[in-house]
Amino acid sequence: MNAEIITIGDEILIGQIVDTNSQWIAIALNKIGVSVMQITSIQDEEQHILDALKEAEARVDLVIVTGGLGPTNDDITKKTLATYFNDSEWIEYPEVIEHIKALFKKINHPFKEIQQYQAQLPSKATCLKNEFGTAPGMWFYENKKVFVSLPGVPYEMKGLMRNEVLPRIQQQFQLPFIIHKTVMTHGQGESVIAGRIANWENNLPPFVKLAYLPSFGKVRLRVSAKGENKQELERVLKEQLTALNALISDVVIGFDTDASIEKRVGELLIEQRKTVCTAESITGGKIAATLVSVAGASSYFKGSFVTYSAETKQSVLGVSVNLIEKHSVVSKEVVEAMAVSARKKLATDYAIAVTGNAGPTTDVTDKTVGVVYIALASKKGVFTEEFNFGQPREKVIQRTVNKALEILQKKILKNN
Amino acid sequence: MNAEIITIGDEILIGQIVDTNSQWIAIALNKIGVSVMQITSIQDEEQHILDALKEAEARVDLVIVTGGLGPTNDDITKKTLATYFNDSEWIEYPEVIEHIKALFKKINHPFKEIQQYQAQLPSKATCLKNEFGTAPGMWFYENKKVFVSLPGVPYEMKGLMRNEVLPRIQQQFQLPFIIHKTVMTHGQGESVIAGRIANWENNLPPFVKLAYLPSFGKVRLRVSAKGENKQELERVLKEQLTALNALISDVVIGFDTDASIEKRVGELLIEQRKTVCTAESITGGKIAATLVSVAGASSYFKGSFVTYSAETKQSVLGVSVNLIEKHSVVSKEVVEAMAVSARKKLATDYAIAVTGNAGPTTDVTDKTVGVVYIALASKKGVFTEEFNFGQPREKVIQRTVNKALEILQKKILKNN
Repeated sequence: MNAEIITIGDEILIGQIVDTNSQWIAIALNKIGVSVMQITSIQDEEQHILDALKEAEARVDLVIVTGGLGPTNDDITKKTLATYFNDSEWIEYPEVIEHIKALFKKINHPFKEIQQYQAQLPSKATCLKNEFGTAPGMWFYENKKVFVSLPGVPYEMKGLMRNEVLPRIQQQFQLPFIIHKTVMTHGQGESVIAGRIANWENNLPPFVKLAYLPSFGKVRLRVSAKGENKQELERVLKEQLTALNALISDVVIGFDTDASIEKRVGELLIEQRKTVCTAESITGGKIAATLVSVAGASSYFKGSFVTYSAETKQSVLGVSVNLIEKHSVVSKEVVEAMAVSARKKLATDYAIAVTGNAGPTTDVTDKTVGVVYIALASKKGVFTEEFNFGQPREKVIQRTVNKALEILQKKILKNN
Repeated sequence: MNAEIITIGDEILIGQIVDTNSQWIAIALNKIGVSVMQITSIQDEEQHILDALKEAEARVDLVIVTGGLGPTNDDITKKTLATYFNDSEWIEYPEVIEHIKALFKKINHPFKEIQQYQAQLPSKATCLKNEFGTAPGMWFYENKKVFVSLPGVPYEMKGLMRNEVLPRIQQQFQLPFIIHKTVMTHGQGESVIAGRIANWENNLPPFVKLAYLPSFGKVRLRVSAKGENKQELERVLKEQLTALNALISDVVIGFDTDASIEKRVGELLIEQRKTVCTAESITGGKIAATLVSVAGASSYFKGSFVTYSAETKQSVLGVSVNLIEKHSVVSKEVVEAMAVSARKKLATDYAIAVTGNAGPTTDVTDKTVGVVYIALASKKGVFTEEFNFGQPREKVIQRTVNKALEILQKKILKNN
């Protein structure tokens, strides 16, 4: 089965945003065995949309359109689809109105007339429930071709793809088996990992493919097998993944696409019935916020002291004025005092502390931009490392968060 | 002048990379007054490329093709362009061979036979010098339409665009001016804002267009004007923006695409020489981390207490056991005690405190998932509001962060 993705709206055409929606959809379709032949970005303009639909219909079996479903005048996708399918009858879905009202009630917004239009769809459309937003998705089946229309807001589009579109495609069409397995790694770059597994990769059977999908601090390895015999594919993949995991188990954090270092740390803390807290300067609470992003964090995360100024390091954590004056706030000595004090104050098993200079200027400290100290205090004492995370500010902060969690993970694994 | 960008290659279609080349080209073309009508990503397949060229030729005056110019067999763009223009004569450019040899010498690679093909172009092509790579760009002018072919390697493509393509377009064509202005808003949805500015929008002159670009908690309004007279466009846009700003000044946070509520709050605090701290439960430090993401935050942000458990609310912030037992940790009373205590401990002008239940389960509290209390303490006392931010967890946390910063901004503006 072949597909085309059409995104509607000016933002991509004037370069204001990058088309990450199409990337996400392309990955999702490839996963279930649908090949994407073309991705097309066009303007919010009726004739142009009609032309693009016609061209796509001639080329592929499945057309996924995103964008242009808002309640305002510049959103014309729905009307244009009705025109394309010669559909002049409109149906209002009371359940969509109820859903919009419920959404608005939750956030204490009054339901406005303009929203009622969101609940009206061309009669040929199957209404797809948009759990996270007001505009429902639409599914059209005409001349043995499927047309899907989705909102452009990424989390709404993703919810609709996951809950409505992908299951329908899999149910209604016979697709080849493609099985994907994921190995999530943290802490080593793509080229380092590639070197470690080169031998394994070169000996993969021809129907098994490996892709590297790197992002900030993480590399996702996707191993895919395509064929007719599902059981055989499963067997081979299992064998290959066991071999792969054995080669790089020190950097593997999980086997789900949503595996993350913070989830892995959470699992380990729960397993070992340990608790953690943080004392943060440079990251301003982002290590704590990252730990808390995991559901159930309250069973192991107790709290954090964000001491962003020299005075708060003294008044809140009791780091001595002398120590700060002698070594500066960005130093091994100060970060160790922060970690030890936080661990004691919150009575946790582990405490992470960080201090550093995120830039853009050298600020009050004499330390180079990018220099960061990370300390981990436990019953075994305090362990500290110095890093230089370069520039710019966001990257220094994010790398500090990643590295701090990585250090914590290693320490928990060693029961240190 | 209208343009289409065509990218050739599988990487974008299987979702392995995001199409940042097209974004860069779109921005560059818009800047010189060329409107991008469509961006198309297609496979490395002859018939598909020929179809895409034909469709683009019917639509626009300028077609920019990237990718598929390597020396290997799977790169077929150059041959396909020759086919498209019925051009069977090839010309070899000795200066390109010299250039490739010089490049290879620099990196100590021997010049290979296969590279000679890079120096051969269809006779109808004008050779564009690729300073940073081996494949020259090509410029075709046929039937009053321009076709440009560029390598897909981003820095080679950018060099060719800057040095060869953009200057040629500006020299050879009379282009209109396009000016874009941005108004960033925070705290109201697209439909609410649309309602407030409907009258203004309906009375815009025909050469001025408005687009709504919503993202989490923010709506970006982009106002664009296109015409011959640059000064006149600037004048009209300035007038329209002043009128727009007057209608919604309470939600406007800036006029740059990177304007944000946290930057606006930072500017206001610096202007008024005020300081802030936070006491966070549900957000786990994310309000603090968001404030700190702004360079220079150390002049107004002092620190934060992340008290994620009932015990830390007692031990760190001194919230009384009685108060917690009587009202629960998710309550107006507890969040107010947190704000007042944090403000006192860190001696700041403002303190934001938040508590709530982010889910997915009701946890230790009896409060519904999504319920959040936000308190703001200042010299005028403490102000508290209750919200229900629904689900899922990430959204509840992010909306709490957004709303807390919005409340802070309003209070600073009123000097409360």
